[in-house]
Amino acid sequence: MRTAFSPHHVERNPKTELSGGQLVTPFESPRRAELIKAAIETARLGPVLKAQAFDLEPVLRVHDAGFVAFLETVWQRWQAAGMAGEAIPTVFPARRMQARPVRNIEGQLGYYAMAVETAIDAGTYPAALGAKDAALTAAQWIALGDRCSFALCRPPGHHAAFDLYGGYCFLNNAAIAAQHLLDHGASRIAVLDVDFHHGNGTQDIFYRRDDVLFLSLHGDPQDAFPHFSGFADETGEGKGLGFTANYPLPPGTGWERWAEALEHALARVVHYAPDVLVVSLGVDTFERDPISFFRLRHPDFRRLGGRLGELGTPTLYVMEGGYAIDDIGQNVVAVLAGHLDR
Amino acid sequence: MRTAFSPHHVERNPKTELSGGQLVTPFESPRRAELIKAAIETARLGPVLKAQAFDLEPVLRVHDAGFVAFLETVWQRWQAAGMAGEAIPTVFPARRMQARPVRNIEGQLGYYAMAVETAIDAGTYPAALGAKDAALTAAQWIALGDRCSFALCRPPGHHAAFDLYGGYCFLNNAAIAAQHLLDHGASRIAVLDVDFHHGNGTQDIFYRRDDVLFLSLHGDPQDAFPHFSGFADETGEGKGLGFTANYPLPPGTGWERWAEALEHALARVVHYAPDVLVVSLGVDTFERDPISFFRLRHPDFRRLGGRLGELGTPTLYVMEGGYAIDDIGQNVVAVLAGHLDR
Repeated sequence: MRTAFSPHHVERNPKTELSGGQLVTPFESPRRAELIKAAIETARLGPVLKAQAFDLEPVLRVHDAGFVAFLETVWQRWQAAGMAGEAIPTVFPARRMQARPVRNIEGQLGYYAMAVETAIDAGTYPAALGAKDAALTAAQWIALGDRCSFALCRPPGHHAAFDLYGGYCFLNNAAIAAQHLLDHGASRIAVLDVDFHHGNGTQDIFYRRDDVLFLSLHGDPQDAFPHFSGFADETGEGKGLGFTANYPLPPGTGWERWAEALEHALARVVHYAPDVLVVSLGVDTFERDPISFFRLRHPDFRRLGGRLGELGTPTLYVMEGGYAIDDIGQNVVAVLAGHLDR
Repeated sequence: MRTAFSPHHVERNPKTELSGGQLVTPFESPRRAELIKAAIETARLGPVLKAQAFDLEPVLRVHDAGFVAFLETVWQRWQAAGMAGEAIPTVFPARRMQARPVRNIEGQLGYYAMAVETAIDAGTYPAALGAKDAALTAAQWIALGDRCSFALCRPPGHHAAFDLYGGYCFLNNAAIAAQHLLDHGASRIAVLDVDFHHGNGTQDIFYRRDDVLFLSLHGDPQDAFPHFSGFADETGEGKGLGFTANYPLPPGTGWERWAEALEHALARVVHYAPDVLVVSLGVDTFERDPISFFRLRHPDFRRLGGRLGELGTPTLYVMEGGYAIDDIGQNVVAVLAGHLDR
């Protein structure tokens, strides 16, 4: 199994995250990706290769051009406006207000944000470009015949919607990869999101389409971020109706209950018979994750990988969340090794 | 002229405001109200009287009951959730997400917020109740025959919508007062909002009604908070169509241009012939206001008051914004004295 990795991820290194009414050191840190990379190398799961550089064309297949231009320029404009801290929105288009991308940088930040915990720093955009390169490189390997590949993306992507960033995400790596596979031979893709948080961005991008089946297991939005997406009644719209499936799960969910939802989702995947399975892989379902509330244990990640490997479908793993730093490497390796063992 | 004032305003005294990516000392401070009170007393504009206590009934005439219950309990729930800082949302219902008041306190904060600069502290709700008491007390005086009264409200109210707080506002004092006047004999009210910022909350509350004419002069939302409300094309809906008028003005606007917009608005007021004029009085149009971009000077405030007094309509002034601490008292007094001189 080959792993695609972009060294540009380190360029995103913000000092602040809004949490509990304070500005704290971000949970989503450069160390995460380095630890995962080291664990893959130590476990000899296969080569970790530098991601190939892609242009914006595959990004613009799933994201709004104005949004991408915003991401490219926001830091310079924020600094030019004389702001002392990292870029965090203060106001957004709330109910019954007009959703317009106004010219003022604070207004644009709020227009393009779906959450405000995530500060933008100087290196955010280059890092996001590197992450999509990793996703596209690993997707390309699948398109060319690999049975399994891993996009070691950082920053993650599944909260990034057509024209929204937040939840540590800027460009939707999994959605960009899925679209790229469709544009290069595949006709049906299933995206299975096993991150603790709902993959609202991926859902948003494919909500009206029947060529991508999106399934997500996650903390019930009544209790968990992103709170306003991931309810069981979200099942797609238009010709996409029935091609989105959400499995919100309560605090304290352990392997048994989680695996039950997984089996439901996998039955949907098998029935859909996708050409490629894209897995949005978060390991923040781990029992010691600092910002989540599931109770998966280390051996459960190996069981997950094994179960996914059993499907026999070409599989692209795309890295999403996971914030228990001490365990992140071995938990990711457990999923991938479990898959490869099948 | 009588002034209604609630000593409870001091209970709102947050330590943090999100501004420029940092947590700074709030611009909207207890000193503001104390300085205005002192200036009124020094200028001998009439008695400053303690606001009478009203129950929630007049509040619930214009605000959602779930929203008010949220304001009442948010601080206790935020603390019970173990948060270390003051209550600031991190996520909100963005485009295409579901706007549901989820049970989790972080989700509820985001659901009920229209901005995140405004931290909620222990005393926010008692202070907001005191401010609405001041507004209702001063409105009552008008209902009973006073020609002019002043509600020295703090926190301000005009950004608070039917079910949204933000922009330093929690309960919409001006809207509560306007509704109270309608419920006690008046049949038509005009609300003229001369604060630097658009009175999005007041507009929202009366947007589909023809018994309240809402007019606002403010910084163009393309450039100024709240960014997503206050465009010239917002003119009301349904039977309220034509009963909202917005005058967005560019950075650097001084008295001449501002007064031109004022005359347009006053012509609308005169034509409407309201029983009472409610003035949402912000003095953040002042040239030295730290967070605004108009260029009104001290003598302009006296001209404004004089022009309003000329209308001869019973007038309730409701205090909104103004953050140039050194000048706030004399600028407010200038408006009121200008009015009384007519």
